Amino acid sequence: MKNPTDLNGFRAALLNLPAADAAARAKAEARNGQLTKPPGALGRLEDLAIWYAGWRGDAQPAIDRPQVIVFAANHGVAARGVSAFPADVTAQMVANFQAGGAAVNQLARAFGARMDVVALQLEAPTADFTVAAAMDEAAFCEALRAGWQAVDEASDLLIVGEMGIGNTTAAAAVAAGLFGGTGADWAGRGTGVDAGGLALKAAVVDEGLALHRAELGDALSVLRCLGGRELAAMAGAILRARVLRIPVILDGFICTAAAAALEKARPGALDHCVAGHVSAETAHGRMLAALGKAPLLSLGLRLGEGSGGTLAIGVLKGAIACHSGMATFAEAGVSDG
Amino acid sequence: MKNPTDLNGFRAALLNLPAADAAARAKAEARNGQLTKPPGALGRLEDLAIWYAGWRGDAQPAIDRPQVIVFAANHGVAARGVSAFPADVTAQMVANFQAGGAAVNQLARAFGARMDVVALQLEAPTADFTVAAAMDEAAFCEALRAGWQAVDEASDLLIVGEMGIGNTTAAAAVAAGLFGGTGADWAGRGTGVDAGGLALKAAVVDEGLALHRAELGDALSVLRCLGGRELAAMAGAILRARVLRIPVILDGFICTAAAAALEKARPGALDHCVAGHVSAETAHGRMLAALGKAPLLSLGLRLGEGSGGTLAIGVLKGAIACHSGMATFAEAGVSDG
Repeated sequence: MKNPTDLNGFRAALLNLPAADAAARAKAEARNGQLTKPPGALGRLEDLAIWYAGWRGDAQPAIDRPQVIVFAANHGVAARGVSAFPADVTAQMVANFQAGGAAVNQLARAFGARMDVVALQLEAPTADFTVAAAMDEAAFCEALRAGWQAVDEASDLLIVGEMGIGNTTAAAAVAAGLFGGTGADWAGRGTGVDAGGLALKAAVVDEGLALHRAELGDALSVLRCLGGRELAAMAGAILRARVLRIPVILDGFICTAAAAALEKARPGALDHCVAGHVSAETAHGRMLAALGKAPLLSLGLRLGEGSGGTLAIGVLKGAIACHSGMATFAEAGVSDG
Repeated sequence: MKNPTDLNGFRAALLNLPAADAAARAKAEARNGQLTKPPGALGRLEDLAIWYAGWRGDAQPAIDRPQVIVFAANHGVAARGVSAFPADVTAQMVANFQAGGAAVNQLARAFGARMDVVALQLEAPTADFTVAAAMDEAAFCEALRAGWQAVDEASDLLIVGEMGIGNTTAAAAVAAGLFGGTGADWAGRGTGVDAGGLALKAAVVDEGLALHRAELGDALSVLRCLGGRELAAMAGAILRARVLRIPVILDGFICTAAAAALEKARPGALDHCVAGHVSAETAHGRMLAALGKAPLLSLGLRLGEGSGGTLAIGVLKGAIACHSGMATFAEAGVSDG
């Protein structure tokens, strides 16, 4: 398909999503039943391998080219004091990603993933969503396109992550706009605010919800008004991955909120995605449950950057290694019960 | 220390366990506090890295030489019909491990681990524990020594797994002997028995508990009377790893039951061990809770072979990669909140 150039183009892409390859999936299921193990003994690894095989159109697939993309942006709402860290840290961490010093760099290297960093106009924060829409339509489309274009067509697995001081507040607002509820339902400690900071975040989210009430019926408008450039870019990248049938491992709270806008705009839009982990950010588990996604890992991470999704590459690689590499009962001369 | 040659030697080793390196651990904790992330944002990965650093005596360690050892043995109790698979499958699966076709082979390869297979007198099953002690003292010591000797002194991480038709019944009996309760409390579906098979397993465990009641006060005697050669060998290997200060990732129900005998014999004996996963075998979670071990993964695996422990190498490698590879706030020029 053509690359979308405007919001109507993105809406059209969402209405025209490819499905997984049913034949490859059926062949993978048949293969799974012949491998040298009791039926079901590899638990979720079996489901993961069959899911991955379907999206790749290959009953015996490999993971050779995972891509991790970290999108960074600044938020007008940070001026409200919603983060434990100053806004300068966004740019400082971009430099750290580029120098290879952040957590996600180490994880990408450990699991053999290419890592790309996309800084989105750090010098131009989005508008404070308690005052105006975070982005106008042009800025929103530009961010969606930045995500869309950042996906390597040759990759076979995608993880998107983010960096943006203030963005757990934006993500909480997006989640509330998409799923209902108030700021108190969705705001969390983020990088580590205290009880007062948490109450402030909830109040700021409620202000945003009130201001943009008329836009909340449309999921992409929710993302535009309450989100941020990195959230929009993650959504654009996840949508592009679907078009290319590249499976996605979702990261934490912010990534999931961005992805949820796609699912709300078009149910099933995240069928090519698995939840890499459930983070310590309070409402992440509830959002995953609302999306019907069971996380692969639950290790108390709350860093963002794509770190939890990248860590989960190990689980998926293990699943694919077993599925594609194991001998069948017939090949190994093992009695199958 | 000298290698134990008899049961008194193993008991002496258990009374003379080395501790982790407190100085390396303290240095690792200090380093963790300086890395470019909010405090605690890597959750359990931080605890894992500090734990590993302490046992390796290195505040900035690497995992370069993980070793997976699969011990295989046959069980007299299999003749009672407690498994969904015939006893011949033990030897068939050993051949499959040696040929590289089993799940654990794929996982060991995926996570860069050396894999060793140790078949323990497959032609001579242990005694049916409902009739006699599974092993006499000589056979038990021989199995402990086989485990002890199988550990590569140059490895920096150990996973032990097992194969042995009938061994979930043996493990359930060991667990009941160590922790109390009845066969119904500890027996599970294993490779996939039906409700009748499950009831039979529970009854067989109860018979064993009744016959060996006089031995249940001593944890190593529980392992000797109710366990099997591969359970004893796993215990021997885990003990040797402790002596060498090699951290261990525990696998599933059977591995944990074998390890639990060490902890019951000497509280703290498993301080160098982390639980790799909680399996779908019903009582595994309860046994881990009794040992105070929170699993790293919960993916419904119930295969044994060391598969869950080997999959968890990925999590530990991720933790160590972050801890040892990340930049500090000072190195990266990032403001620390």
